[in-house]
Amino acid sequence: MRASAPHKAELSRPLVDRAVRGALEEDLGLAGDITSQATLPADATARAVFRAREPGVVCGLELAAAAFRLIGPGLEFRASIADGEAVTPGQTIAAVAGNARLILGAERTALNFLNHLSGIATATHRFVEAVEGTGARITCTRKTTPGLRAFEKYAVRVGGGVNHRYGLDDAILIKDNHIAVAGGVAAAVEAARAFAGHLTAIEVEVTSLDELDAALGAGATAVLLDNMSPDELRAAVKHAGGAARLEASGGVTLETVRAVAETGVEFISTSAITLGAPPLDIGLDIEIGG
Amino acid sequence: MRASAPHKAELSRPLVDRAVRGALEEDLGLAGDITSQATLPADATARAVFRAREPGVVCGLELAAAAFRLIGPGLEFRASIADGEAVTPGQTIAAVAGNARLILGAERTALNFLNHLSGIATATHRFVEAVEGTGARITCTRKTTPGLRAFEKYAVRVGGGVNHRYGLDDAILIKDNHIAVAGGVAAAVEAARAFAGHLTAIEVEVTSLDELDAALGAGATAVLLDNMSPDELRAAVKHAGGAARLEASGGVTLETVRAVAETGVEFISTSAITLGAPPLDIGLDIEIGG
Amino acid sequence: MRASAPHKAELSRPLVDRAVRGALEEDLGLAGDITSQATLPADATARAVFRAREPGVVCGLELAAAAFRLIGPGLEFRASIADGEAVTPGQTIAAVAGNARLILGAERTALNFLNHLSGIATATHRFVEAVEGTGARITCTRKTTPGLRAFEKYAVRVGGGVNHRYGLDDAILIKDNHIAVAGGVAAAVEAARAFAGHLTAIEVEVTSLDELDAALGAGATAVLLDNMSPDELRAAVKHAGGAARLEASGGVTLETVRAVAETGVEFISTSAITLGAPPLDIGLDIEIGG
Amino acid sequence: MRASAPHKAELSRPLVDRAVRGALEEDLGLAGDITSQATLPADATARAVFRAREPGVVCGLELAAAAFRLIGPGLEFRASIADGEAVTPGQTIAAVAGNARLILGAERTALNFLNHLSGIATATHRFVEAVEGTGARITCTRKTTPGLRAFEKYAVRVGGGVNHRYGLDDAILIKDNHIAVAGGVAAAVEAARAFAGHLTAIEVEVTSLDELDAALGAGATAVLLDNMSPDELRAAVKHAGGAARLEASGGVTLETVRAVAETGVEFISTSAITLGAPPLDIGLDIEIGG
Amino acid sequence: MRASAPHKAELSRPLVDRAVRGALEEDLGLAGDITSQATLPADATARAVFRAREPGVVCGLELAAAAFRLIGPGLEFRASIADGEAVTPGQTIAAVAGNARLILGAERTALNFLNHLSGIATATHRFVEAVEGTGARITCTRKTTPGLRAFEKYAVRVGGGVNHRYGLDDAILIKDNHIAVAGGVAAAVEAARAFAGHLTAIEVEVTSLDELDAALGAGATAVLLDNMSPDELRAAVKHAGGAARLEASGGVTLETVRAVAETGVEFISTSAITLGAPPLDIGLDIEIGG
Amino acid sequence: MRASAPHKAELSRPLVDRAVRGALEEDLGLAGDITSQATLPADATARAVFRAREPGVVCGLELAAAAFRLIGPGLEFRASIADGEAVTPGQTIAAVAGNARLILGAERTALNFLNHLSGIATATHRFVEAVEGTGARITCTRKTTPGLRAFEKYAVRVGGGVNHRYGLDDAILIKDNHIAVAGGVAAAVEAARAFAGHLTAIEVEVTSLDELDAALGAGATAVLLDNMSPDELRAAVKHAGGAARLEASGGVTLETVRAVAETGVEFISTSAITLGAPPLDIGLDIEIGG
Repeated sequence: MRASAPHKAELSRPLVDRAVRGALEEDLGLAGDITSQATLPADATARAVFRAREPGVVCGLELAAAAFRLIGPGLEFRASIADGEAVTPGQTIAAVAGNARLILGAERTALNFLNHLSGIATATHRFVEAVEGTGARITCTRKTTPGLRAFEKYAVRVGGGVNHRYGLDDAILIKDNHIAVAGGVAAAVEAARAFAGHLTAIEVEVTSLDELDAALGAGATAVLLDNMSPDELRAAVKHAGGAARLEASGGVTLETVRAVAETGVEFISTSAITLGAPPLDIGLDIEIGG
Repeated sequence: MRASAPHKAELSRPLVDRAVRGALEEDLGLAGDITSQATLPADATARAVFRAREPGVVCGLELAAAAFRLIGPGLEFRASIADGEAVTPGQTIAAVAGNARLILGAERTALNFLNHLSGIATATHRFVEAVEGTGARITCTRKTTPGLRAFEKYAVRVGGGVNHRYGLDDAILIKDNHIAVAGGVAAAVEAARAFAGHLTAIEVEVTSLDELDAALGAGATAVLLDNMSPDELRAAVKHAGGAARLEASGGVTLETVRAVAETGVEFISTSAITLGAPPLDIGLDIEIGG
Repeated sequence: MRASAPHKAELSRPLVDRAVRGALEEDLGLAGDITSQATLPADATARAVFRAREPGVVCGLELAAAAFRLIGPGLEFRASIADGEAVTPGQTIAAVAGNARLILGAERTALNFLNHLSGIATATHRFVEAVEGTGARITCTRKTTPGLRAFEKYAVRVGGGVNHRYGLDDAILIKDNHIAVAGGVAAAVEAARAFAGHLTAIEVEVTSLDELDAALGAGATAVLLDNMSPDELRAAVKHAGGAARLEASGGVTLETVRAVAETGVEFISTSAITLGAPPLDIGLDIEIGG
Repeated sequence: MRASAPHKAELSRPLVDRAVRGALEEDLGLAGDITSQATLPADATARAVFRAREPGVVCGLELAAAAFRLIGPGLEFRASIADGEAVTPGQTIAAVAGNARLILGAERTALNFLNHLSGIATATHRFVEAVEGTGARITCTRKTTPGLRAFEKYAVRVGGGVNHRYGLDDAILIKDNHIAVAGGVAAAVEAARAFAGHLTAIEVEVTSLDELDAALGAGATAVLLDNMSPDELRAAVKHAGGAARLEASGGVTLETVRAVAETGVEFISTSAITLGAPPLDIGLDIEIGG
Repeated sequence: MRASAPHKAELSRPLVDRAVRGALEEDLGLAGDITSQATLPADATARAVFRAREPGVVCGLELAAAAFRLIGPGLEFRASIADGEAVTPGQTIAAVAGNARLILGAERTALNFLNHLSGIATATHRFVEAVEGTGARITCTRKTTPGLRAFEKYAVRVGGGVNHRYGLDDAILIKDNHIAVAGGVAAAVEAARAFAGHLTAIEVEVTSLDELDAALGAGATAVLLDNMSPDELRAAVKHAGGAARLEASGGVTLETVRAVAETGVEFISTSAITLGAPPLDIGLDIEIGG
Repeated sequence: MRASAPHKAELSRPLVDRAVRGALEEDLGLAGDITSQATLPADATARAVFRAREPGVVCGLELAAAAFRLIGPGLEFRASIADGEAVTPGQTIAAVAGNARLILGAERTALNFLNHLSGIATATHRFVEAVEGTGARITCTRKTTPGLRAFEKYAVRVGGGVNHRYGLDDAILIKDNHIAVAGGVAAAVEAARAFAGHLTAIEVEVTSLDELDAALGAGATAVLLDNMSPDELRAAVKHAGGAARLEASGGVTLETVRAVAETGVEFISTSAITLGAPPLDIGLDIEIGG
């Protein structure tokens, strides 16, 4: 796995702090780390190193840093690499030094974020590599873990993907039900155009070339081609002739994604890179001093 | 997959409501479901049915219900089965009826909880089935998704597992670093006993029979046998002779878990049933009326 | 002032409840409505009627309803009209009946939302009327009151306008500084396209026809024409020839907006309809029974 | 407009931080400032200067400072003047330097607070100037923007006004309804005195000299003279003879306020300085470096 | 102990719900009531009765009711008496019926509020009884439990006392330090009058007749007589001649309070009725059905 | 009173900050410390010293420190002793220096925490001293002040006690009702064992030797001996013969606790050290400079 191209996404500090503070409170409860309180002197110090245990793309260093910053004063956290870089087993990712009780208190919180988000970045990167050279881009869905959407969408970008809607609020995506109630594709798109300003995209989900025709005719700026075979996708691409941006969706796997990409669609969306991504194994080696 | 034995866990209403309200706000943003606002009449009604698309154990129905209860008034949600029951592809899980905009607005939130937690319950159940008859019990770790620990621990129980520590605060788990700083196993356990009351368990992590001896001698009530082979585990079980409760941990998979269980250990912990569990495919079929 | 065309926007219940609960706590403090506690029997009942005291477009009824729903149980609130309808002085807007202390406790909260949001809907409606028949649409900016953006954007729509970006996160708007650092309009737009998916709009702010050329050439889908005279706008519209959606912005007033609209631009944005909108005078006539 | 006399009000840090953090999250959403992420290098720096674009009294510098402090580390914010000082068009108010993405991310939040609160301070100051020399003082009402009362009340003080009740909880204000139910002015005031301790003021709203007599006779310490003409007010002042503090209220404008002040009332309250105050035009000139 | 006179205070619903929800989450943690989950059927029902175990004045029934309302749906709570009523040992206070797990889950939360607040109401009532007939009134201080001030102030009123300041924000209380820095009593009071509107009381703390003179001369409307003997207090009352409201404070006990009251002071403040009040013993007898 | 042995408990920073921020907001309200704003120059400085006014054990210094850290920047707080140390009247506990308004603004918040928690630590320490040499340990209950359990449990430990359950979630405590519904002690304990993992303790409450027998026979690891006389306790200790950890509970006072301890029980629980503990008198002497 090669290093991902430098990503440009960024997490806002207030979001990071709120999520990490919540995760710390969840793990510390009302009594805190009672094992360390019982067995370690209050002033014991430690040094700990985050290391990859399998190859992948790292993501979430800012959240790990926040865990050590928010649990208490005085810890020094240093990342050896940046979010988006590929790592090999054994490679050092970051290190933290300072009060031992504080380091152990934040350890699991930092790791849970790193494992989870690096898993998403890695899964995304695998899809991105699989379509390399085709021009197709990998994008995510709203199938994310409740409470973590901002971070999972960020991890997709860190892995080389691009973002789809963040929520129901930031783009219009017309599906069969909307079309049925609105009275057809044309009516639905028209209603959407009347509702939306100039900065709200309008995408229509279609399952056939006929529906694609209707969507293009109605002026949709993007079309989601749902569960089509590569042949159908190829036909749709030809049919559209660049009149709208095309997204393929539905049951795409790492094995099938290249065939989909080679049909000429511009975007391929999959939940396999968010809800379905396995965590990346990153561990923390701790050495506690006196 | 057979139905799981009736579980007894329960989620508290305040926790459920806070998590679901947060997830709804995350998906609705400031503008809400603009597609439905643009294309559906405000008084359109709908009926939607949750159906399994693959076999598994369902978990999270109370969260799904809360999504439809909290997004607005008037929706009627009915579950056909209870958390912990096994489902077959196509089986109806629950249905909701009422205002179409509200149903669509809560759809993804409800599904994201159901998919994620049913995945954990299903993975747990697979491990539980794999050790059936051995007397061993499957337990989880603190490797959970930040913000969702209460729900993921609940899903483990729903799947037939039992819970390990919920956090750093509710049991003492002494690891190598604590032992090193405390000056040996005996000193660490003694410190823990001095700290803890009569309702706080004390477990010691060991990697050899010598360390096991030390832990037992020091009066630990539970011992975590870390990364031992089945033969080592068998020797440890014999060695302990019932003097402490034994937990096997480290790299256990669905393939290896039965061999571990047959060594006679009472608990087997694995993160494969939480952070590493794939989501269960459950879908929502919606039919919108006028 | 005629009634506004039926708007389609909707506020999500969780957002409404959080804002109203916060406003109630702000007005009630720790001690609550001490005047009513001191002078009214705990079981006194009242009936109160919201009436317009000047012509305008009403907005915020759901927030007013929430104030009476969240302050305590048992109040009955009924709106006589819907958000978006025009009212004349003296016209009844809504009525509430029930416990007198509760009604007085929520009165000011309900009115503050109604006055403020109806002011925005009314101001928007005045701009919308001013451009009637030109095809131009009125849109807002991010110049909103901190904490109330969701509601103010909603009020703009209720008044007949359409929404611009809700925040920095849901569309790309490239200004002179971005262009300067990126190395020109083309480079900036290209960077934006590389970053954005298919559902993120890209708008470029320009101040001259040369810059407009550059933006169009680079493939921007929308262009903000900043502070141009009607003649300049007319030239820009002709120049663009439909290749991008055009927004006029900068110093537009109710007096000048029609001239701007007649230049052929599709959108006209102004902060005069949010931060600068005067409140609409709506009062509450209360009659307390025994 | 001359500089206001030095005000003495102060905002508490926890209040400021909570409001500003909320406003930042509102503008940044889950994805943050995507324009800057797409077009600016992560390490680009900038310098930005806040300048008045019209004359007025500045208010809200602490909130602006908090926006740049809370969005991330490393920005340096310096105010050239203090809250309460008058500015002329073009005058520098403050400057901020540091990471360009962070400055642009907090820009609108800082400006929205400054524009809004400076508008209130300026409107208040105009009323204060209008009554100069009469001894009358300008005070506000509870007609404030939901969520911003602490800041708007502060802005009134910054503009030279004094504060009325902050909420229903911190003084007793008896109106016609309370009087009717309580069984007359005397009974209502007596009930209030029985309820209140020695630090809770009791004001009675009256609309005639008869009611004023009743209020004075009952021992009210303050009387609100509602919607009286200057002649009526003058009569009331004479009638009261200093026995209670008098507040004139109802429909006061910048044009009529001096006539009201010259009647001898001690306080004049108006919502024109809060809900009805137009924003003050303050802009931010940004220069982004490499 | 006789029943207290009917009090008039009221708690606002949003405050009650926030505090009770927090207390429930504190007691239930992430796993909930595991004893009941383990040993009681999910549909077991119960009936429980709150009974006084010692004489006192009951306070907090609304919070107890909220505990059973917020833990889940379907419980029926009925109070037999109202806040402020005196109870004798064994007397029934309230009863709740419904799901057994839910009742046990809310039991301790309800009791902790009832025990604590009834303790404050009872202690207050004892002081009120002790000064009966003197005309003196008992008032509290800001020595309250962090997070519970609204409820403890309410309990003081329920016990027959009146409220002092709720916080630093709702009245001016000038102490020696303020006087020293301001340059004397007259200067401090003048500064306070310049700052405050007509609804903000100004009290000055004095320790001698000379200081009392100064405070009266400066126009303070209330004076706190700090740590004076009954003779000194009597002299102060005579000296003041009704020119200001007088509060005695400092080391007052149930034994000494009557002597203080007989000096003619109008208010006597003591922290013995808040921070120092012992809880009232109220128990819950539960009977669980099948 | 001698100094307590060095305790080992620790409070987590996020918990401390949240509680202290809430307490500051409660005392400052929307307007802040208006007395200081009115009478002290904004740049006045002060120095204040916390001193014990009666003997006791100090607890809560971290919360006091947080009050001065969170109210604003620039204050310097220094503790002269550590939590758990005994103090004599007049002894200096801590000092703070810096801006006078900020010190006065945080004073009462800091004191309320210190007074309350030191009261608990002191009461606990008195019980601990009373049983010195017997081997018995003092433990608390869930009878705590809503919202402050983490801090009160910490104060118990600081006073030399050990902690019981923190909530319903972290240990199983089977009472008569659970036993009745479950069908006997054996059935209840078996249900608990089936529910719990290896780190969840199971305690049974008994009122007679027969019930003790049943609990021991069923394999309970701890037994709560409820309201037994010293003779009964002695018999129970002998009966149990070390087979389970024994806790005596019910009506224990400082006068009776030694007799209970001498029966040989390992733990004695009492609510007298939490809900019933009187506050410790600690004062703050302030000297304000220019």
